[in-house]
Amino acid sequence: MPAMKSKTPAERANVSGLGFFFSPKRVAIIGASRTQGKVGYVVLENFAKNGFPGKIFPVNPEAEEILGIKCYKSLREVKERVELAVICVPAKFVLKVLEDCARKSVPAVIIVTAGFAETGNKAETEKLRKFISSHKKMRVIGPNCLGVLAAKTKVDTLFLPIDRLGRPKEGGISFVSQSGALGSAILDWAAMQGFGIAKFVSYGNAMDVDESDLLEFLDNDEETKVIALYIEGVGNGRKFFEALRHTGKRKPVIVIKGGTTSEGGKAVGSHTGSLAGSNEVYETLFRQTNAIRAETMQEVFDFSRVLELEPKMKGKKIQIITNGGGYGVLCTDAAIGAGLELAKMNEKSKSAIRKACPDYAIIANPIDLTGDATSERYAIALAEAMNSREVDAIILVTLFQTPLLDESIITIVREANEKKTKPLLVLSVGGSYCQKMNSLLAKENVNVFESPVEIALALKKLRQFSGK
Amino acid sequence: MPAMKSKTPAERANVSGLGFFFSPKRVAIIGASRTQGKVGYVVLENFAKNGFPGKIFPVNPEAEEILGIKCYKSLREVKERVELAVICVPAKFVLKVLEDCARKSVPAVIIVTAGFAETGNKAETEKLRKFISSHKKMRVIGPNCLGVLAAKTKVDTLFLPIDRLGRPKEGGISFVSQSGALGSAILDWAAMQGFGIAKFVSYGNAMDVDESDLLEFLDNDEETKVIALYIEGVGNGRKFFEALRHTGKRKPVIVIKGGTTSEGGKAVGSHTGSLAGSNEVYETLFRQTNAIRAETMQEVFDFSRVLELEPKMKGKKIQIITNGGGYGVLCTDAAIGAGLELAKMNEKSKSAIRKACPDYAIIANPIDLTGDATSERYAIALAEAMNSREVDAIILVTLFQTPLLDESIITIVREANEKKTKPLLVLSVGGSYCQKMNSLLAKENVNVFESPVEIALALKKLRQFSGK
Repeated sequence: MPAMKSKTPAERANVSGLGFFFSPKRVAIIGASRTQGKVGYVVLENFAKNGFPGKIFPVNPEAEEILGIKCYKSLREVKERVELAVICVPAKFVLKVLEDCARKSVPAVIIVTAGFAETGNKAETEKLRKFISSHKKMRVIGPNCLGVLAAKTKVDTLFLPIDRLGRPKEGGISFVSQSGALGSAILDWAAMQGFGIAKFVSYGNAMDVDESDLLEFLDNDEETKVIALYIEGVGNGRKFFEALRHTGKRKPVIVIKGGTTSEGGKAVGSHTGSLAGSNEVYETLFRQTNAIRAETMQEVFDFSRVLELEPKMKGKKIQIITNGGGYGVLCTDAAIGAGLELAKMNEKSKSAIRKACPDYAIIANPIDLTGDATSERYAIALAEAMNSREVDAIILVTLFQTPLLDESIITIVREANEKKTKPLLVLSVGGSYCQKMNSLLAKENVNVFESPVEIALALKKLRQFSGK
Repeated sequence: MPAMKSKTPAERANVSGLGFFFSPKRVAIIGASRTQGKVGYVVLENFAKNGFPGKIFPVNPEAEEILGIKCYKSLREVKERVELAVICVPAKFVLKVLEDCARKSVPAVIIVTAGFAETGNKAETEKLRKFISSHKKMRVIGPNCLGVLAAKTKVDTLFLPIDRLGRPKEGGISFVSQSGALGSAILDWAAMQGFGIAKFVSYGNAMDVDESDLLEFLDNDEETKVIALYIEGVGNGRKFFEALRHTGKRKPVIVIKGGTTSEGGKAVGSHTGSLAGSNEVYETLFRQTNAIRAETMQEVFDFSRVLELEPKMKGKKIQIITNGGGYGVLCTDAAIGAGLELAKMNEKSKSAIRKACPDYAIIANPIDLTGDATSERYAIALAEAMNSREVDAIILVTLFQTPLLDESIITIVREANEKKTKPLLVLSVGGSYCQKMNSLLAKENVNVFESPVEIALALKKLRQFSGK
């Protein structure tokens, strides 16, 4: 008989005891407010109105009910087991409330309240830290954070109203942000762009749960295909290194690091009180752990969606297919600049394409199907490139301004893409009609880009992750 | 009495005889077609339906009238003076039609027709070239081009229908593109983004009018505040150098160069038949002529709108004002990375801002007004930074997810921006509500960005041009 039992799925999902943050059955909102717009009101409203399937216990000593839900004078009055407590009371009451949570054995607590370390409130901060570290079974996110958004289970502690901050649909990317403001701006942007999010966490001052704990949890989370991380500094470097190394072996971890210049590092100091650390140290850390570094939030999402949706890229050789020579040239420059190479398709493939094209088409790399290219011409070139052993990935440029390129191109690209035999990325630049076509492609899980440089960088990162 | 007369405004506007391309009173469309979607139909339709104020003469030997406009069997039948002829006939008829144009002393001709040098049709190409070079008074754009779009005078020879290719509104940027497909995709994109265009030219094979002639013309064009140029290679390097040097002294010229890698250079060869030239040669050329190099089309438009709308940037010192610490950090990193410096406002200014803010606000650089910042708090910080002699430009981060930041921020930013005492760029990231606010700002001629890196690069280029 084996000496050690392997973990059950539930145990694995609840690694580090964080599971209750993302799928609690019973949630107490302590400091629930009757005043519209206030933090304690918005948090309660999120749970009450957005389809959270569990039970909600608003706690407010002065209210009978809020939004039609019975209120409790204190957490002690709640008889049922509570799995997640969200604390929105003023700073001076937080410790007392936390004692109630401990007494009731609440396993997961989010302290939204600000006004501790980041404002120099040392005495209160120290008391809080001591209490938290002496109650290991109670995991705490915060204080000074937005907390958690879980798209599937409808846990939403973000105290910014939905008319200001859109919530993204369900998807495979989980996003962890040290900065609440940055995290919320990006969530809002992702919602509008149609990017899907599995889980979002803003963890604030990180008195207990930190970026490393969250990495470990998301590593074991089946919904999460790609992890994106915004950090300014880390509390425990060794722990972060181990978490990143472990997770980086199995899932793409994309990191954007704030405070890479010495001036930015100073700004980090006054923002989150972290030590930014030198750029070189982080560069080495990311390289050693297979983490994928992004320079901009656009890159974070570009890399995420490519790593989520594309198959592995077995080598560096790309084939460019275009209906506009200029974009063929710019894609070539961008691909070479990103360290990729141009594939050389064999004569058999090329002559098959040549047969389907007029004399003035250029069957090389890039393949220029020219401005009068039809969907049929694309179909043949695309099929040959998909089947070619010389090609590791395809950049397909579709300029929709030309009237001969009709909507059947959508089906052609979708069918090629569904085979998932190699990465297929589309470049499409233009206005309203083009955007309409791009949306149709995106709905079919085709990755569409508007910039040759962005498409080439995304392929570079895909190749980097595929190689390991 | 002076020995030389200075040029009249009309003469200056018609430098190199190119004025008739952009403001002709009478236009002949030779090869006008009755078949919807055909090149000769779309070109006629553009002139007939989009408000062109001059007279139109469709030429088609087989039609009595098209779109209700009387047709002529040949150009010889037109009795009135024609200032612009647009040629859409098949390649084999082009020379004959061009002879008609010369006989009638048409000063400006656009040959849309393709099928010459780019397809290896050598004999026909040589005849055409000879004829054009022996008729110096007739200026020719093309062949193999989209021709001209002039937003104000409604000259529009773009043969791509408006439902596929949107036309931008009037503005101060003129865009010259060697590649028609790239040019049209960008125009379409610019139309959707709300960027204004003064004049657009796709000049194709450049048998007569080339990039240098167009630069010289746009240098003297009052509507054009900024010139953007996509080139793959240039025919006459010396002429281009002189034109760029001359224009670069007075107006910002932003250049994006295709074919900067050796592989990209090969693609250029098969695309426009030009010699791409080494990247180093162009780098030197751009530096010597004060041209501003862009790496992506996003940069072309970012640099253009900043150079069009912002006042000069007298030094490198920027002040960052934010309501989200994370974006303060990322803007600092981006600014330092772009070679800018952080301004140090004096104590008097800082204490004035401090008085208007709660204790936990950080009055340094970045100034972090924190997540509960109101428009009033912004107003005071912005006024101090605008008046500070230590500050050369301002990056104002406005994260609209926070409910306390109301719409009066628009008026505050507009009023500061209208004084034009120093560049003021806004960073605003988010979803639908944020986009609504960004549009309000853009309508007031405020430059809004979504990326710290893009905002910092645009300021870098503004500083580069301001310094000379």
